[in-house]
Amino acid sequence: MRDLDSQETYLADRMGLAFEMRDLVGSGPVPQARYAAPYGVVGFGEGWWAAQLARDWVPAEFTHAGTQFVLEGGYDLGGAAGAGLYAASSGAEIVRLGWAENTEVELLASALSPYRYLRFLLLATGQRDELSRIDQALLLERDRLRPEVSLDKNPAKFLAYSLLERTPMFVVPEGYPGLAAAMQQTLARVGKSLSFTPPPSALEFFVTGLEARHEQGDPIAAVLVGEDERKKIAQQILESRVDTLIELPEPEAEGMLAKALAYWYRITWAAYYLALLYGVEPGDWEVLDHLRQAT
Amino acid sequence: MRDLDSQETYLADRMGLAFEMRDLVGSGPVPQARYAAPYGVVGFGEGWWAAQLARDWVPAEFTHAGTQFVLEGGYDLGGAAGAGLYAASSGAEIVRLGWAENTEVELLASALSPYRYLRFLLLATGQRDELSRIDQALLLERDRLRPEVSLDKNPAKFLAYSLLERTPMFVVPEGYPGLAAAMQQTLARVGKSLSFTPPPSALEFFVTGLEARHEQGDPIAAVLVGEDERKKIAQQILESRVDTLIELPEPEAEGMLAKALAYWYRITWAAYYLALLYGVEPGDWEVLDHLRQAT
Repeated sequence: MRDLDSQETYLADRMGLAFEMRDLVGSGPVPQARYAAPYGVVGFGEGWWAAQLARDWVPAEFTHAGTQFVLEGGYDLGGAAGAGLYAASSGAEIVRLGWAENTEVELLASALSPYRYLRFLLLATGQRDELSRIDQALLLERDRLRPEVSLDKNPAKFLAYSLLERTPMFVVPEGYPGLAAAMQQTLARVGKSLSFTPPPSALEFFVTGLEARHEQGDPIAAVLVGEDERKKIAQQILESRVDTLIELPEPEAEGMLAKALAYWYRITWAAYYLALLYGVEPGDWEVLDHLRQAT
Repeated sequence: MRDLDSQETYLADRMGLAFEMRDLVGSGPVPQARYAAPYGVVGFGEGWWAAQLARDWVPAEFTHAGTQFVLEGGYDLGGAAGAGLYAASSGAEIVRLGWAENTEVELLASALSPYRYLRFLLLATGQRDELSRIDQALLLERDRLRPEVSLDKNPAKFLAYSLLERTPMFVVPEGYPGLAAAMQQTLARVGKSLSFTPPPSALEFFVTGLEARHEQGDPIAAVLVGEDERKKIAQQILESRVDTLIELPEPEAEGMLAKALAYWYRITWAAYYLALLYGVEPGDWEVLDHLRQAT
């Protein structure tokens, strides 16, 4: 078993993802212009989660006036170009963020890009206070989760050991749009590990879909997010059906966006440590570059 | 290995789910009154998928005039009552569908209820043609998938054998809201089997999350739905990363709703046969009744 408090374990991080994760707050492009309201936000590829979270304060996907933001990083496979969005948003100024050619705002592909898309959107639409709440929450998380904090005080390192050789299932309360899938995504891209998310109406799924699992496959680790009535019932049902239950306590954060990002950041740190425990590279730049060449 | 063309295999279906599946088209409650427009539709528990599909022709979740439909079957754990929807829809007539006490329209819990919620909504909002397209598509599927059709001509039986001892991953093109999760749900409730769905921006997930899976857990069966450019690329990437690739050809159906329901119905039949191959009860009434007692 590798030791997360030993320096040599970190040699697997050849690309230095730990630095990118440490310096996440404040990174990414900032608006160079003023963007007129009303706003529309639509997301493809890597931009999907930020666009979904933006529904919190930008209700419209498309707008015919003001500014149409198009988040199109990652392997969207022409989704952005083919979505008929130029017709849907005619009349608005179109601002594309991503790494395709001719985007108005360059944003490089990264497992950490959800924060950067969201940060740009918040700044561009006058939501500076919301961004402060997010940044504050992430800095608090970072202080507890970074590599210098030893295992006995570091919940992300502890979480990584709990997820080792298990398949996590992320159980997220309602009111955090896309968070479960964002956790699944970051565990794959950083932790190089498979995880899954239950469908809506999850209790029926737990009772029926997990029943026969005891003899099959990897043991499941249910990761239960936050605190609500639903979670307590889920916990009772899952207790006898999964290998282990892991509770993620609420982050010290104000508002849904700050909490969602803090949860995501915590899982990303856990995914980072998980990659190290498996002895694999936590960065994914190289492997995704191969994909880009091939598509 | 059990034989899906042998009658005794069907003894595991003690509750007669095959009959409920055969007689699905035309089942469920029908509107007994006229419901005034505009409409709002919101879904909880078992009603989640029908509500999501209803966005296709009822854009609003909530309405302050006309009729507010509240789909609240299944174990929504008070989600419907707690959602503040009575404030959000004040001014509208509220029509609740489900099996809680005092609902206006009774709809019993069932793995097959997505069709019934959707059917009621279509009839209540004057979408009779759309319902005909769905019903026609389901009847066509049924004629190919029912137990009397032998394995060599029955794609659902064949699919069940392919999914046996594997963990399916449902890869669904954009434009079918909720279909992947609906498939995951029906495979659990009817097939008593675990499956998973990739997050949005799935290609990054395939490349990173499935990389290390070869030595772990159950082999994965990627179930690729429909035909599009994206699917071809997904196929190339998945070929070397999963145990088997299964293509689900497009159903003979007109329009998104009819296609989505036909896909779901086909997977439900496959899930039914999968339960029989495992020798477990494909119905889930009994196990969910225990859950209801406990919650």
